[in-house]
Amino acid sequence: MPLRKPLSDEPCPVARSVDLIGDRWSLLIVRDAFDGMRRFGDFQRSLGAAKNILADRLRKLVDAGILALQDASDGTAYQEYVLTPQGERLFPVVVALRQWGERHLFAPGERHSVLVDKRTGKAVPAMSPKAKDGALLRPADAEVRKVSQGTR
Amino acid sequence: MPLRKPLSDEPCPVARSVDLIGDRWSLLIVRDAFDGMRRFGDFQRSLGAAKNILADRLRKLVDAGILALQDASDGTAYQEYVLTPQGERLFPVVVALRQWGERHLFAPGERHSVLVDKRTGKAVPAMSPKAKDGALLRPADAEVRKVSQGTR
Repeated sequence: MPLRKPLSDEPCPVARSVDLIGDRWSLLIVRDAFDGMRRFGDFQRSLGAAKNILADRLRKLVDAGILALQDASDGTAYQEYVLTPQGERLFPVVVALRQWGERHLFAPGERHSVLVDKRTGKAVPAMSPKAKDGALLRPADAEVRKVSQGTR
Repeated sequence: MPLRKPLSDEPCPVARSVDLIGDRWSLLIVRDAFDGMRRFGDFQRSLGAAKNILADRLRKLVDAGILALQDASDGTAYQEYVLTPQGERLFPVVVALRQWGERHLFAPGERHSVLVDKRTGKAVPAMSPKAKDGALLRPADAEVRKVSQGTR
């Protein structure tokens, strides 16, 4: 019995995203890339991941079009991993994980890093799904309309 | 050499969130819970996860205060897993994963499930981090202010 369903024909966008980036290392690599990290050795020091695991995840992210490999910006022989436009659009995913963690996974008064708006230096406000008219959309206000059977 | 740093004293909220829910099964369980799923057998059928893995992840989500166990709503002997208020606040995480997947992981014209506003029946608009003044905040507009050394 297979442990995983094949996801390539999953009609659920959440499942497809999770299949690509829903693992600890991929999510933390993407986080570090948003912080400007570009080199294998820097990712390794930041994450403490085994080299083979890190290489595998970086390759998978490049294959998925989330990161692109390019020559080093300083003219050295290094290769650098940079977010593609598609990778940059993962920003809301990383921000959502951050904001939930800030709210629920720190003791009162415990210090944590903060995402700030560069122009103002102020913390980025909590992000939330909104309706077309701008009203806050809570989970109970929304529902998933499934693809009908046979149209996969 | 340990493969993982201990995360309990990580000052990065993304890392703490990823440590709790940054795996395939946990994210898909949370997705299904938002769709109203409550019972072990239903999660198992939906996810195709091995029983021991599913039981482990559900226990971890209960221990983390994301799901709560309660008696079945229909008076039967079943136990049900329901999102706590803290779990409900993962809505932006699931919506962000969905919206990225919708945009990047489907071929043009390929059908996928859609998150709709119940009041209007319309698709929920793309969610994005915003500045305090409501302006769209792109990754380059924000930066992480780290906790200074020694203040962990």
